[in-house]
Amino acid sequence: MKSFIDIPPDSHFPIENLPYGIFSTCDNPRCRIGVAIGDMILDLSLISHLFTGPVLKAHQQVFQQVTLNAFMSLGRSAWKEARSTLQTLLSDDPTLRDDPSLRARALVPQSAAKMHLPAEIGDYTDFYSSIDHATNVGTMFRGKDNALMPNWRYLPVGYHGRASSVVVSGTPIRRPNGQTRPKDDEPPVFGPCRLMDFELEMAFFVGPGNKLGEPISVRDAHEHIFGMVLMNDWSARDIQKWEYVPLGPFLAKNLGTTISPWVVTMEALAPFVVENYVQDPQPFSYLKHEDQYNYDIKLEVGIRSDGSDHVGTVCCSNFRNMYWTMKQQLAHHTVTGCNICTGDLLASGTISGPSEDSFGSLLELSWRGSKTVDIGNGATRKFLQDGDEVIITGYCQGNGYKVGFGSCTGKLLPAHPLQ
Amino acid sequence: MKSFIDIPPDSHFPIENLPYGIFSTCDNPRCRIGVAIGDMILDLSLISHLFTGPVLKAHQQVFQQVTLNAFMSLGRSAWKEARSTLQTLLSDDPTLRDDPSLRARALVPQSAAKMHLPAEIGDYTDFYSSIDHATNVGTMFRGKDNALMPNWRYLPVGYHGRASSVVVSGTPIRRPNGQTRPKDDEPPVFGPCRLMDFELEMAFFVGPGNKLGEPISVRDAHEHIFGMVLMNDWSARDIQKWEYVPLGPFLAKNLGTTISPWVVTMEALAPFVVENYVQDPQPFSYLKHEDQYNYDIKLEVGIRSDGSDHVGTVCCSNFRNMYWTMKQQLAHHTVTGCNICTGDLLASGTISGPSEDSFGSLLELSWRGSKTVDIGNGATRKFLQDGDEVIITGYCQGNGYKVGFGSCTGKLLPAHPLQ
Ligand SMILES: [Ca+2]
Ligand SMILES: [Ca+2]
Ligand SMILES: [Mg+2]
Ligand SMILES: [Mg+2]
Ligand code: NI
Repeated sequence: MKSFIDIPPDSHFPIENLPYGIFSTCDNPRCRIGVAIGDMILDLSLISHLFTGPVLKAHQQVFQQVTLNAFMSLGRSAWKEARSTLQTLLSDDPTLRDDPSLRARALVPQSAAKMHLPAEIGDYTDFYSSIDHATNVGTMFRGKDNALMPNWRYLPVGYHGRASSVVVSGTPIRRPNGQTRPKDDEPPVFGPCRLMDFELEMAFFVGPGNKLGEPISVRDAHEHIFGMVLMNDWSARDIQKWEYVPLGPFLAKNLGTTISPWVVTMEALAPFVVENYVQDPQPFSYLKHEDQYNYDIKLEVGIRSDGSDHVGTVCCSNFRNMYWTMKQQLAHHTVTGCNICTGDLLASGTISGPSEDSFGSLLELSWRGSKTVDIGNGATRKFLQDGDEVIITGYCQGNGYKVGFGSCTGKLLPAHPLQ
Repeated sequence: MKSFIDIPPDSHFPIENLPYGIFSTCDNPRCRIGVAIGDMILDLSLISHLFTGPVLKAHQQVFQQVTLNAFMSLGRSAWKEARSTLQTLLSDDPTLRDDPSLRARALVPQSAAKMHLPAEIGDYTDFYSSIDHATNVGTMFRGKDNALMPNWRYLPVGYHGRASSVVVSGTPIRRPNGQTRPKDDEPPVFGPCRLMDFELEMAFFVGPGNKLGEPISVRDAHEHIFGMVLMNDWSARDIQKWEYVPLGPFLAKNLGTTISPWVVTMEALAPFVVENYVQDPQPFSYLKHEDQYNYDIKLEVGIRSDGSDHVGTVCCSNFRNMYWTMKQQLAHHTVTGCNICTGDLLASGTISGPSEDSFGSLLELSWRGSKTVDIGNGATRKFLQDGDEVIITGYCQGNGYKVGFGSCTGKLLPAHPLQ
């Protein structure tokens, strides 16, 4: 398949991808739905009348909304039809290709667009589904023999995160003030977080939801999964350590969570499905599925210090390191009857691999601050410094093309001075 | 002050109260804003034009909304003006009193109304701010000497709850299936929760929010607190025990959280302010306030077994047992920069008092199932049985009147059969 639009050779957004996002421009500050294609965005609000397939014909107004929620709520038959219509419109169909006026209006350079959150996120959940990450953290805090908690291999451990502070890539994040206890035998202190960290994660958006009291079975889970984004779950390690027993992370994580603006659909990711992680013990039947639902997505984290033009790569990982699949996460989340809604965001947890250069957080990379991490140009880090920009990228490698996620970035601002 | 509307002597809703809620009727299924007065509801959608004060004149459309969010976002000057207008309209002003046609349309019997969630809840947070509750739970699981965690007296411990499953009083709750580990040295099992519990709580709704990165000071906190409701934080104790380490409660709490439909404003509660709990050690300055922000709200929990007409009282507690104030909870929640939004719900945590009959959960009342709790007519409970209805009520006792919350009820349905 080839688009009439010029796709740069290393683009994350060829016609095989077609991720959805919300954008605005200087001329038109209204948020609208776009699809990334090469360096351009196709403005769906201007071509909604071209979605004339049997499913979308009666629902063209979903492309006039300011978030993806209405479109995501329609379900997989609508998503497939939209993809097929878009691939036709962007390849050999003359409707758009041969209408210079429509092309001029409906195709906007990405460089001229401001991106917004793709969805209204009702609830956000963060899992903890990478076995290497959980083992690393457990080893640091409890020793190698008790690294994994007894429940870890039986269920996808997760917790409710803060939905309001999920922000789109590019939003600055402020170093928080908070309570920490630097010395275990002395009282806590109040002041700026000293151990700011990133967490390399991915997350998926929920399409149709379920009713309270009616679980989603692992068999049906795929029908509820729209697509994926990159995520940085900024974490204040010293605040977390003091606050998190017994009710879990709270302020350490709710200061901001950054996601990439383009939602890559499960249809675009389908060619990159790989074998699931081998699970031992066998999961309970409500979590069991035989089909593959793991994905080969190459992930990288870079840090750029303030004023530098060099991005130092600190981590190369892969989404396929996940122990629990997204289907299992969704089935588990709803097995007690919890209702999941369109636009909910479910995140993987930090994605670490087995090798030291694949650890998905500075906590692990610096092994709790016991060693330094090279960020190039002679600079090193144990944790983040003010002015550091964290840049997460990810893509799948196809045969001569990439299905990519673009990037998920955020710059760390200094803490507010104490009063 | 006296209303021209007949107020039954024990009513929770005299003219001193005037709580806001969302209701619909058979004739008119549209959700609209009402104010409880005696046994009636005043339909604000039909009298929005009567809010002609300097603040509300330009914002009358907030009373045409289907949730309280727009009204709550206006802030305290609007809330005070609305209260004053309502008290005038419901007492000696002739506008409503002497217009039989308007009265007939705008006053709806509560018995004819269906109540809905009062607000669109973006995020829901549950604190753990009763020292007796935290001490009880700590004593049971870690012994008397280590009952309170080291952080407990330094900060209001809390966690993010699930917003989507907050439901209005009357909604049935289904006993969840889930993983539990009945014996610590054997593998977990999957099946219906065996230890279903209630938690007696109260919660407040946030009015105006704050921007990400810009904390709400304890000084300003009151301006962000609209009003309060009763809450039952249904809890699956056996699921909680197996899942909650290290990231906190997840499925054990997200199966449903019930709130009462009427939001009692801080203005109505003002006469019932009492001394704050004496805090030791002194809190950090970001948590410190000298003015009273604790409230004398009498709370009761009853259980009615299936088919019975007897409600057995199992707990008499009081909101004044809270160690941390709502101002402190809000200041703490935002100190790292977390943004709170209009309509967010912040809950107290289980409200236990020092005496055994004031414990706010069956976990404490049955002391982890080691003794039975009398629910009358010869019946006892350690934990909830299918068909049990849990009824929470609460009120402040004024001089010859009550400012009450009505009730917060829910009936426990049997678990779905396993497949
Ligand atoms: Ca995380
Ligand atoms: Ca609770
Ligand atoms: Mg976060
Ligand atoms: Mg709950
Ligand atoms: Ni939420």
